[in-house]
Amino acid sequence: MNATPLRIIATGGTFDKCYAPIDGSLGFSESCVPALVGESRLQPAPEIEVLMLVDSLDMTPAQRQSLVAACQAAPESQLVIIHGTDTLVESAAAIAASAPEKTIVLTGAMVPARFDASDARFNLGFAIAAARVLPAGVWVAIHGLIQRWDQVRKNRAAGAFEAL
Amino acid sequence: MNATPLRIIATGGTFDKCYAPIDGSLGFSESCVPALVGESRLQPAPEIEVLMLVDSLDMTPAQRQSLVAACQAAPESQLVIIHGTDTLVESAAAIAASAPEKTIVLTGAMVPARFDASDARFNLGFAIAAARVLPAGVWVAIHGLIQRWDQVRKNRAAGAFEAL
Amino acid sequence: MNATPLRIIATGGTFDKCYAPIDGSLGFSESCVPALVGESRLQPAPEIEVLMLVDSLDMTPAQRQSLVAACQAAPESQLVIIHGTDTLVESAAAIAASAPEKTIVLTGAMVPARFDASDARFNLGFAIAAARVLPAGVWVAIHGLIQRWDQVRKNRAAGAFEAL
Amino acid sequence: MNATPLRIIATGGTFDKCYAPIDGSLGFSESCVPALVGESRLQPAPEIEVLMLVDSLDMTPAQRQSLVAACQAAPESQLVIIHGTDTLVESAAAIAASAPEKTIVLTGAMVPARFDASDARFNLGFAIAAARVLPAGVWVAIHGLIQRWDQVRKNRAAGAFEAL
Repeated sequence: MNATPLRIIATGGTFDKCYAPIDGSLGFSESCVPALVGESRLQPAPEIEVLMLVDSLDMTPAQRQSLVAACQAAPESQLVIIHGTDTLVESAAAIAASAPEKTIVLTGAMVPARFDASDARFNLGFAIAAARVLPAGVWVAIHGLIQRWDQVRKNRAAGAFEAL
Repeated sequence: MNATPLRIIATGGTFDKCYAPIDGSLGFSESCVPALVGESRLQPAPEIEVLMLVDSLDMTPAQRQSLVAACQAAPESQLVIIHGTDTLVESAAAIAASAPEKTIVLTGAMVPARFDASDARFNLGFAIAAARVLPAGVWVAIHGLIQRWDQVRKNRAAGAFEAL
Repeated sequence: MNATPLRIIATGGTFDKCYAPIDGSLGFSESCVPALVGESRLQPAPEIEVLMLVDSLDMTPAQRQSLVAACQAAPESQLVIIHGTDTLVESAAAIAASAPEKTIVLTGAMVPARFDASDARFNLGFAIAAARVLPAGVWVAIHGLIQRWDQVRKNRAAGAFEAL
Repeated sequence: MNATPLRIIATGGTFDKCYAPIDGSLGFSESCVPALVGESRLQPAPEIEVLMLVDSLDMTPAQRQSLVAACQAAPESQLVIIHGTDTLVESAAAIAASAPEKTIVLTGAMVPARFDASDARFNLGFAIAAARVLPAGVWVAIHGLIQRWDQVRKNRAAGAFEAL
């Protein structure tokens, strides 16, 4: 079950935020996904596509469509998407509407990978295993929870995903 | 697929090694697994059982049997075992010989969780997703590879697991 | 020159900021100074006083006076103050106006201690050595620069302190 | 007191040890000093000379003499030497025997910089401030302790330096 190639598509979100020392804000510069994939010693190495680096609350309809298009264009049958958590389910719905015949797993993080005690590396591994094993469809995999995209929502007050 | 309770059994290995400042060696003191599980924001929280903390090359037959017994005794149907990589497959074989009707996934790390650029958090997430999704049996899940215990070996020269 | 006791007064600033997962903001919860002092293996252990945890742009005149009072009240003759960088020099001036007969060294950080590639631990060590060695007076010590409080300013555009 | 240029000479020691995943040992590959200096935002940037990367118990008399020679050859008047702690005082003595008219400060770490909860960044900052402020001579600066080279020893059982 490991011969199938895997692609990771990074879109930003908390997972990939950096600290900007001059103004003290959190933003984006370079994706940390290639470094995390290197640390994780993945064999074979997946394709990594840094499609955009945005806060998911700022993702425009055009950007969301470009994500759908990237999923369609990918030659791999297993895709993991790193996404901001606030509109992750909305993007999952858009991807599902395109009826992909691939296993597409969306994940993200509540604490940036570059910060102490981040959930990013765990969620990356969690989502990749889900993509390796689950059948075709659009899935959300984060914090130990694995659900079809239409069976999950983010509880913003709790900062957690929950099954419907 | 998330209602089933999960148990993590820690046995040590590189995953859980600490640095001992007085003599400059790597050894064991306290398991880092509870802290990593906390960071990972798992909902619901899994059971964590720190069964032993040993280098897997030093695991005695009696210790290996205690691991088999812990798998049998666990009330959960999904088990993740943190294990040193050198004899991980040997322990997997011993567990498989007890014919468990559970999904048991063994993982480990090549770089300690407390060191920079560790694969530990990734592998923890990777193994937990495998335990969530795979059918009953004994599996090895590490570095993007998921195999039945008798279809994998560690290539020590490469420091990597490979499918048979 | 090591017998003299040392006190560290934490007031917050970027040095001590935490990430708040629910709203994705940087703020304050618990000071990291005790943990950093533990890592640093300081012998003897200094007194640590967490006086407040504020962004220095939000420090009120009353809070600034409480810092002046804490410096006056401290029984130690060597004080290190962890402070936000934006009004660090303003607090230094207020402390200097109270004409302390102590060695008081202010420092801070441009990247939170809990973030990757932080300057916090370096600056903590840098300021403590300055406090150990310099004569009585109010000093700023950060990023390799050591200056009397009235010979330094923060260049906000560059995100750096510079000698006048 | 900041115009004087500074040189950091790296010789290895625990400070600079890496983890070797294949055999699980601690050794040396590339020095972390340039990365740590970058994080520390030193202005102006110091010269960094990676002279050797050895465990100080393995430092040969010839290597120790090359360190003495490097101190003599350095055009800067402030030198910080990163050194293994076990023979740090022995190297300090050898340097002092060459009667340098520079401020030379030796430091090290009890926990590698690449490991969690390391004292390396603190000690780097601590030693640089000492080099900035102290008069010419050979000094040891570590863990909050600053002593002339002949007034300090390492207590190996305690894993700490102590004043004589």
